[in-house]
Amino acid sequence: MLELLSKKGSFFDVASIQEINQLLNLGISPKKMGYGNTIKKEKHIKYAFEKGITLFTTDCLVDMKKIARAAPGSKIFVRLLLDNTGADWPLSRKFGTHTETAFNLLIEAKKQGLVPYGVSFHVGSQQHDIGQWDTAISLCKYLFESLEKEGVYLKAINLGGGLPSNYLSPVPKIKKYMEHIIRFLKEDFPNKLPDIFIEPGRYMVGDAGIIVSEVVHATRRSELDSTCWVYLDIGKFGGLMETLEESIKYPVFFPTHSTAEETMPVILAGPTCDSFDILYEKFNYNFPKSIKEGDQVFILTAGAYTRSYSGICFNGFPPLMYYILK
Amino acid sequence: MLELLSKKGSFFDVASIQEINQLLNLGISPKKMGYGNTIKKEKHIKYAFEKGITLFTTDCLVDMKKIARAAPGSKIFVRLLLDNTGADWPLSRKFGTHTETAFNLLIEAKKQGLVPYGVSFHVGSQQHDIGQWDTAISLCKYLFESLEKEGVYLKAINLGGGLPSNYLSPVPKIKKYMEHIIRFLKEDFPNKLPDIFIEPGRYMVGDAGIIVSEVVHATRRSELDSTCWVYLDIGKFGGLMETLEESIKYPVFFPTHSTAEETMPVILAGPTCDSFDILYEKFNYNFPKSIKEGDQVFILTAGAYTRSYSGICFNGFPPLMYYILK
Repeated sequence: MLELLSKKGSFFDVASIQEINQLLNLGISPKKMGYGNTIKKEKHIKYAFEKGITLFTTDCLVDMKKIARAAPGSKIFVRLLLDNTGADWPLSRKFGTHTETAFNLLIEAKKQGLVPYGVSFHVGSQQHDIGQWDTAISLCKYLFESLEKEGVYLKAINLGGGLPSNYLSPVPKIKKYMEHIIRFLKEDFPNKLPDIFIEPGRYMVGDAGIIVSEVVHATRRSELDSTCWVYLDIGKFGGLMETLEESIKYPVFFPTHSTAEETMPVILAGPTCDSFDILYEKFNYNFPKSIKEGDQVFILTAGAYTRSYSGICFNGFPPLMYYILK
Repeated sequence: MLELLSKKGSFFDVASIQEINQLLNLGISPKKMGYGNTIKKEKHIKYAFEKGITLFTTDCLVDMKKIARAAPGSKIFVRLLLDNTGADWPLSRKFGTHTETAFNLLIEAKKQGLVPYGVSFHVGSQQHDIGQWDTAISLCKYLFESLEKEGVYLKAINLGGGLPSNYLSPVPKIKKYMEHIIRFLKEDFPNKLPDIFIEPGRYMVGDAGIIVSEVVHATRRSELDSTCWVYLDIGKFGGLMETLEESIKYPVFFPTHSTAEETMPVILAGPTCDSFDILYEKFNYNFPKSIKEGDQVFILTAGAYTRSYSGICFNGFPPLMYYILK
């Protein structure tokens, strides 16, 4: 996947030195990488800079000073803090900074011998509300214009991720998203568009993976129970971490059952001895009434954030295995 | 640790065939193992039985029938459903069954050619309320007596876990817990105590581990912010999964700071590009005012449920490394 992206001319956002090494080992140029994680040790910034990376994202003075010391002359994105309303997997609070601080940081970047390059943001993963990009791009324009008055000329916007995969809740087509995002950009930057970065990770790889799971058993707590508990052989520690707070709802498919079969509401849980390993309890999936041990359940759109989130060995269960079909 | 426990005469509760193999590889007898996970495939029950395991825990008819088919003549624990009030890491709902169903299952066990052996329960992990054992043992007595009238003679109680480690919230001494639990048992079973199983895992190994983490940086969102964000180089995916919902609050120690130093309230977060990887946001730890990048933070009582919960590679970060000091 990484090799394919590289061939297609993609740029790479890295979160750790391990990801940098992974890309370097594939022969990908450090000039095609940006260190997008705002939480990084100075020695890791130094490592990245020595390997040739000269683009960093920051959101606070203490991190920017590290970049100034360890990667002098590098280009700087300052990340805005957005509220992520409308996202199934919000990312707010931990990252980013408000406009005034962003303004000050970009002024300070120049003083620190860095290149104030642009503004980055993330509207939250699996974002349903296109208006979030509208607001974020308006804030970028505000920063571009206010900084221009101070002699700081920004060149780029990193739109982050947020473009959705095809989970259970319907989302607009990607084309619609892009039409609107491009319109927002053109309206706010009518003379010349900034350089645009975008990270459509989940959108791009979501459909590339299917998890083949199996029912361990289906049972009711008592005869009067209206919902059935279905235990799968995969759970939160086997790759379904994004079921946390029932945020991401994967579509499911039953290869051994007719779609015409009558269904029943179920509570879905994983196989470990931990109650945290319940997948969906408030939201009830509809499963075929005859579901039983050994029946396969295909978990669709499982190509993003599954394998990488697996636990190493909780209760002895191994990490999610994967097979690449060519 | 497993070898030491085996030498001391310990019995082992297993959750998966991988755990069975791990114990067999250490030369531990299958007669010393019970398959305590109520969620298991029939082929895994068969595997366990073929390896020599003849004790299984169940909580529903569909699972018990599997045991009857795949491990005929085995001893059966039926697990009660408790509400786990008072536990920092509750385990309710997903496991266990109510008394009437437990009664019926133990009657049915005999009919299925199994040995109705006893009742098991779990009061929830890190349980503060000793009264939970009282209630649970009363239910056991109720089942022992009602089943005796039907000619079913139970022999054992599995008290599960729940005995606490030394985290931030104070808990009674283990000796106090045991005094009370033994009293509850003696009061309810005055003539002859059943065989007693107990799983003091977290209590036993909690203090055996210290995580040595390092501050990535400490920063405020704006000048007026009263709390400082401190980012550590370990987070939820590096072994601190039990910070979920801020359930387990580990004690911390600052080896390079004086305990006399003035402190400030902080929000603690991990190093990955995921907002879920915030450790404590509602509860504020007090950190030394001069805390800065590179300062070590020792996370104490980290011997239980840390390494085993680590993610394999989220954002490229490797699983928690460990060193055994002898």
